[in-house]
Order: sequence, then structure tokens, then C-alpha cells
Amino acid sequence: MNDQLIIFDTTLRDGEQSPGASMTRDEKLRIARQLERMKVNVIEAGFAAASNGDFDAVKAVAEAIRESTVCSLARANENDIRRAGEAIRPAASGRIHTFIATSPIHMEKKLRMTPDQVVEQAVRAIGWAKEYTDDIEFSAEDAGRSEIDFLCRIFEAVIKAGATTINVPDTVGYNVPEQFADTIRSLIERVPGADKVVWSVHCHNDLGLAVANSLAAVRAGARQVECTVNGLGERAGNASLEEIVMAVRTRKDVFLCDTRVDTTQIVPASKLVSGITGFPVQPNKAIVGANAFAHESGIHQDGVLKHRETYEIMRAEDVGWTTNKLVMGKHSGRNAFRSRLQELGVEITSEEQLNHAFARFKELADKKHEIFDEDLQALMSDESSEPKEHFRLLSSSFHSETGETPCARVTLAVGGSEAKAESCGSGPVDAAFKAIEVVANSGTELLLYSVNAITTGTDAQGEVTVRLSKDGRVVNGQGADTDIIVASAKAYLNALNKIQAGTEKMNPQV
Amino acid sequence: MNDQLIIFDTTLRDGEQSPGASMTRDEKLRIARQLERMKVNVIEAGFAAASNGDFDAVKAVAEAIRESTVCSLARANENDIRRAGEAIRPAASGRIHTFIATSPIHMEKKLRMTPDQVVEQAVRAIGWAKEYTDDIEFSAEDAGRSEIDFLCRIFEAVIKAGATTINVPDTVGYNVPEQFADTIRSLIERVPGADKVVWSVHCHNDLGLAVANSLAAVRAGARQVECTVNGLGERAGNASLEEIVMAVRTRKDVFLCDTRVDTTQIVPASKLVSGITGFPVQPNKAIVGANAFAHESGIHQDGVLKHRETYEIMRAEDVGWTTNKLVMGKHSGRNAFRSRLQELGVEITSEEQLNHAFARFKELADKKHEIFDEDLQALMSDESSEPKEHFRLLSSSFHSETGETPCARVTLAVGGSEAKAESCGSGPVDAAFKAIEVVANSGTELLLYSVNAITTGTDAQGEVTVRLSKDGRVVNGQGADTDIIVASAKAYLNALNKIQAGTEKMNPQV
Repeated sequence: MNDQLIIFDTTLRDGEQSPGASMTRDEKLRIARQLERMKVNVIEAGFAAASNGDFDAVKAVAEAIRESTVCSLARANENDIRRAGEAIRPAASGRIHTFIATSPIHMEKKLRMTPDQVVEQAVRAIGWAKEYTDDIEFSAEDAGRSEIDFLCRIFEAVIKAGATTINVPDTVGYNVPEQFADTIRSLIERVPGADKVVWSVHCHNDLGLAVANSLAAVRAGARQVECTVNGLGERAGNASLEEIVMAVRTRKDVFLCDTRVDTTQIVPASKLVSGITGFPVQPNKAIVGANAFAHESGIHQDGVLKHRETYEIMRAEDVGWTTNKLVMGKHSGRNAFRSRLQELGVEITSEEQLNHAFARFKELADKKHEIFDEDLQALMSDESSEPKEHFRLLSSSFHSETGETPCARVTLAVGGSEAKAESCGSGPVDAAFKAIEVVANSGTELLLYSVNAITTGTDAQGEVTVRLSKDGRVVNGQGADTDIIVASAKAYLNALNKIQAGTEKMNPQV
Repeated sequence: MNDQLIIFDTTLRDGEQSPGASMTRDEKLRIARQLERMKVNVIEAGFAAASNGDFDAVKAVAEAIRESTVCSLARANENDIRRAGEAIRPAASGRIHTFIATSPIHMEKKLRMTPDQVVEQAVRAIGWAKEYTDDIEFSAEDAGRSEIDFLCRIFEAVIKAGATTINVPDTVGYNVPEQFADTIRSLIERVPGADKVVWSVHCHNDLGLAVANSLAAVRAGARQVECTVNGLGERAGNASLEEIVMAVRTRKDVFLCDTRVDTTQIVPASKLVSGITGFPVQPNKAIVGANAFAHESGIHQDGVLKHRETYEIMRAEDVGWTTNKLVMGKHSGRNAFRSRLQELGVEITSEEQLNHAFARFKELADKKHEIFDEDLQALMSDESSEPKEHFRLLSSSFHSETGETPCARVTLAVGGSEAKAESCGSGPVDAAFKAIEVVANSGTELLLYSVNAITTGTDAQGEVTVRLSKDGRVVNGQGADTDIIVASAKAYLNALNKIQAGTEKMNPQV
């Protein structure tokens, strides 16, 4: 059996489907570059047929990435597949991933098709896909609740038609490891042509078993795992890339395979995805949580000191935990700034953009003595996430005093003109948001407000995430500043700009 | 085989060992009451011999709890066991949990004892414990890397000596499910007297497999799982109580057992533990994450609408996700306030405390129109977490304006006297912390600063967590206020007070 485990990352597709995690084209590009640096095998960049924005994002990733295969999802219909095929055309290596539901409940209630029709449609889909690429993945949606005989039948048919990877998703996270492993083992034994394709799994985490189910499948012969950075994804998320990769690496004796992933890029990838989506990583998250390698107990520390191996099964540096690297200060020059950004994988497309970013860097360096990589990432997030900003903060002032109501004044650029407003509120953040609403009158609802210090120390920048909803749409806005009220105002405006610019799109469920 | 799965919660012991998660006696009591309300079978309240503070906390929990067994951890030595025995004496049902390391590496490098000596010490420990209770649990530390023959030998010996629960921990989170299940199955088959005891597992999450390993053990015959709310615990944490309970409940067909847990208390427990420790729950956490039951994708929503079962395997209301309940406003009276606190399990020990809390409730109600349960919890956290506060915020004022350096003035009560200070900083929070440090001059380092809105809406209170370290000690401070700068200052002072009051203690590693 092949001893390479293919890592198929779907942070940009299934991860992005988390409510509030939608990403702009530029954000997707930055994550894709980090995934390439981490050496994942396949990057699922999106669902090209969902909207023009999604099509553009998949295409942009296909153009930018050379070392990983770039994939687009497509339902098993001609339009979806042609859109996917067009979007991945520029890729060095491109894949189309098509799917159709195979569980009785889905076929009957959702597709309203007979099993025969479903098989026929799947085979037709592979045919369309072949016009664009030889690398074709087929998924049986809700395979976890499908009948095994029917799965064998449809898989045999699509393998004959030319599918090269067969994916078995547990769409609703209902499976448990031994049982899921049995399913994979039976499929590989029973499906004619099974030895010619790569078997893949895609697990959801509703019962907390996404990683365990994926790993059980690997022991049963699966050689591709679909996963996301930080386990991002709808509801309880997908299998965590970092847990899969480190479990297999640490326990090669059990799994008898390994990935090509550069594990030292795991923590940087985690921080990047968390920063862009505004989804925090809990401190007790395996591998990438802030405490994952922190030892507290006295007895335990004694053990670690006496013999390192006593309690350590992985080393923090193997997954990219290093102390913050001091990169620059207020005397750093333009060239140093530009080359550090390049090392971080941030794309600068014009001199004008560089000038603007550099000016903001200098502003930040005046307020904060030491500028870390995380500060630069936040600065550039701020920079790139507002491509067509309708609202922009020009200036602000805040005052709060015990016994008085806190008040805020803001001056905003709105389209081409300028608007001033002031308001009081239950706190300065509330006052600032209300002052902005005097101008914007957006009709949105605030769902979430959170702040994380980007680096440690009292002069750290605060990165604020504001989640707004309007008419059922949910967006995240981010803002970073050493002044938390200013960061909050920026985040609120960023979210309003996304609401303003946003278009509806559709997300598939695999 | 018995079809009851015993839930042994160790949030207050192993969970508390997370760096920065240490809890006061009152905080432990509040969590213990919620665990009792949730009907967990056993509450491990602490490690009585660790410090006088720990002893008092275990004893207080033993006095307060009637419906769950209260347990203290103890190393296998006479002093530890006598302290544990004294601490649990007031319990309606009390357990002593004693442990000793059994892996070659631990026996040799840490204990510096021969295997014979280890068995002898374990048997002696059970003897001491029997002077206090018949409910005795024995753990083989680092069982995951111990030799199975030696495990059989020591378990046989302690069962003969009177142990009633045998716990098999995977201390460093190195095991994988099938293998761990094989170990449990072999032990149950091979150890004489195995049928007279309850077999228990205690799994760590370093590779993301704590829940999966626990569940695999349940299929192999284990009937107690040790776990924590939110999977809190050192490094990547312990098995998540909520995931274990819901996996077993949802898949009774596979696990052939169930717990007595009232699952509707799961989300309240999660919020309480997260609020007290300052450890956020990531939105994509299974069961208790904010997104765990949120559906985003268009196709998927369509599926949900067409047939509920299509995508739902659990209902949000089954685990206690309900919309925020509006409990009170500014016109609510003292009696309503008191009875709501009682319903929330908050203990009011004196009229004076009630008066003080009620005055603060009225202050909050003036600033915030709607007061939710979460607000009351935060108010009472604030109230109870500063029993002997050295520093207290009397008043403050902040000003920030674009182009100027943000400044803060604070007036503090310090011991019996009053001190004023002011400072400027890179933002108003930085300025406030620096102003406080002008007075406190604490020599601490700021490790983490984070903010979460307690409820939604722009007038929500912010709950700030500040993590400080000094000489290797790490504490969390919390503060809640509708003004984020005031909340930050309170949190900083709360952390300083904990540093001031703190005593060293030792945490065991099981």
C-alpha cells in the first residue's frame, strides 16, 4: 500500500462556509500561499459556480499556486463543472471535485431523483470534467448514511468513467471510528477498480470525532484526508489539518504512512487563518492552541526536567511554535519592509499600495516600539480587506469618565464626501458604533464583538472582530490598532463595507 | 454488561491545571453546583494535599454537593491520602483517587523506585484510603506507555486491597483509539477481579484523540470516563465532557450504554467554565461552540428546510442552547434579583453581600437596558472573585483623540488608602494599565489580553480577561463593564490581587 497520505485542504471552501468566515479574494490568496508553503498536496480553493466572486477567487488561486494542485468543487451538473473547469484552467495542476448525494433521505427529499438517475448523472459529470482535466474527484454526499451496495455501484461507475479520487464524506458527523473504518475497508475490497484510485475521506466534527474518523479510515486504507486549518468549517467544523498531520507523523508506527507537509508551517497557518476569519483558536486546542505545549503542574515540570521524553511526544518547534521574531522598528526602511512582506507571502501589487502600507507601518512604529510578524499581518489584513471601501475612519475622539456617560465623535469618509457625527453610549465602543450609525444607518445587527491582542506586552495592538448580520447575511469585520476604540471603529466600518459590497452566494454541503 | 456510563468530571482538578485557569474556592463552588445540576456522577474537586487553599476548596465542595460523589486526588503516600480523606469527610458520598506511575520511564526517571516497590506502595495507599471511605479509585499514571503485564499485576493487587474503580490514563495523549481499546479489553480479560470494579479511562488530547480514545475504551468495556467541561486541561486538554455525553447519547446503538447527565445543562456549564477561566470556546467547537448548530450554506439550508433530519443529528435545545432569556431590567426588585441568583446557583452568604451585589446590579441596569443571565453571572464573578482585594478601582477617566497620545487617570483604593495616578500610552487600555502600574509597580508581565461581549447588542458588557505572570506564576484576572476601558482596568486589578494573594501550589499529573 502507498505510504504517502495526501493532504487535501478545504479551508478556502468548506472552511469558508462557516457563518461569518467568508473571505475576500485577497484573503484567499494569502491563505493559499501559506498552504503551498506548508506543502499541502491539494488546495480546494472554492466552489466556482457559487458566484462570480467565487469564480474569480478560484481562478486567482489557480494562477498563483505552483506547488500544490488547485481544485474547485462542482455539483454534478454541466454548468457547475464547466465553471470549475474554466476557473482551474490556469493551474499548474488542476482538479475538479464533483459530488452528488447518495443517501436515501437525500436522494428522495433533496434531489428528488431515483438511484438510477443519480448514477447516470454522476457518470455524465465525470465526462464533462474530463474535457478540462484528468484529475477528477468524485464525492458521494452523505455517504455516512448511504447504503453500502449503492455506494459500491456508483463508485464502480464513476471509476470506469474516469474518476481518479473517490471521496467518502461523513456529511453530518454521525459516524464513529470503527464503523467508519469498516465502511472504507468494505468499499476498497468490494468496488471493482478500487486499486486504481485514491480513496479519500471528509469528516465533520459534530460529535468531536472528525479527526478520529479520518485516522481510522487511514488505517483502513484511505490515502487522502480532507481537512481544514484549525478545523474551521460549518457547525463544529471539519477534521483539523494539524491534528491529522501530527498524529500520522508522531505515530507512523500505527498509521504506516506519512504526509509531505512541512510541519513548521502549521502554527503560522493557524494564526493566519484565525486572523483573517476572526475565529479564535481556543488555548486548549491540540497542536495550535496557545497552551498546547505549555506545562503547568509542578510534578509534571519535575518530570519534564528529569527526562524530556517523560511527557513530550512532540516538540513545539516542530509545528512552528517559536518566540515572536522581532522584525522591525521605527527605523526600518522601505526595502526591509517590502522584503519582510514578501517573506510573509503578502502580495504587493503596485508601488502605490506599497507606499500606502509603508506609511501606515511608520504610523504604527511611532506608537509601538517593536513590530512583530503578527503586527505586519494585521496591518496588511487591514490594508487588503478594504478594496472598495465605502466608509473610512478619518479621525475620532473618545472621552469617558466615572459618573459621566461615555461619548465619541467620528469623522468618516463616505463615498466621496465627509461626514461627522457624535453619540454617547453605555461605553466608548458603544458610543463609537452609535456615532458611526448616525451616518451609516445600516440596519445591521451586532452578533459578536471580540478582541485579541496580536502580540503580548502592554503596547500590543488589539485586533477587533465585529460580526454583523443584515437580512440573514453574516459578515466579519476586522480592525487593528494600538487604540482599542479606534480598532473597534475600524472593524465596524470594515464589516459595514463588506455588507455594502456583498453579493449573495450559495454554499454546497459535502 | 452494565449500561450506565459514569461521568467523572475533573474540570476542578485537571482542568484547573491549565496555565492561567486556576480558580478561587468560590469559583470552584459555583462550577461544582452546575456540575451537580448537570447530574455528573463524580466531581473531582481538587488535590487536597497541594496547598491549604486546595484543601479548603475540596472541603467546601464536599460540604455543598449532595447529588454527586465528591472526590479528591492524592498521590500514593500517607500524607496525601490523609489530607484527601479529611477534605472529603463532609461529603454525602466521598471518593479518594490515588495514583502512582507505572511506565518504565516514569518509575525509573521520576519515582526512582523498582516495580516491586511501586506495587507495594500502591497497596499501602489503598489501605490508608480505606480508613476514610469504601469508594477508592486507583490510577496507573502513564498507563498508555506501561507494560501490560505490569499493569495486570498492580491492578490485581489494588483490587484485592479494596480499590473499586481502576483508571487507565493516557497521560501524554500518545494513544490511538483501536490500540487503546485493545489495552482496555486485555486488562478486563486478564486481571483477576476485573468484574468487581468499574474500569475508567482518562485521556489527554495532544493528538486531538482524547474523545475518540475514551469512546473506543467504552466500546471495550470501560464504564467510567474522566473528562472536563470544554475539554479544559493542561496542554491540549482532556476529553470534552459534552462530546463524550452527546456521542454516547446520540449513538446508543453503537455504545450500548448511556449517562445520567441532564444534557440541557451542558451549554450553561460551558459558558460558566469559560467565563470563570477566561478560556474562550472556539466557534467551531463541537456541541458548545457558537456555530455548532448554525447552518450557513444555501444548499444545506434548503436540505434542512425540506427535511429536518437531513442534516441534524442532535437538536440545539437538547444541549441547552436557548435564546438568551431576558431576566431583568432597571425596575426589577431585590427579591426577583435574589431568586434569579438562586436559580443560577449563585450562593449569597450574607445580607451585606446581597446589598452590595444588588447595588451593582442597579448601576448596571442604568447603563444597559436588558439584563441577561450572562450579565448576572459576570456581575457575580466580579463580586466573588475579589474576596481580599488589595487594589480596587474607585474612579477613572480616559481620553483619546486622533493625532494625540491617549491618556488615562485612575484613582485606586490600595489596602486602606487611596492613590491617584495618570499615564499616557499607545492606546487607552495601555494608558490605564500604565497608570495602575505607577501605583502598583508589580513587576508582572502581560501574557494575554482578550475581550468577549457577554451578550449581543451594542450596549453589551465587555468581559475582559488579563493574564499576568510573575516569577513563573500565571494568573487570570476578569472584569466586566459596559465600558471596555473600565472592564480592562478591573481585570488588570483582579489579576494583580490574585498575584498579591496567591500561594504556590503543586499540580499532579494524571
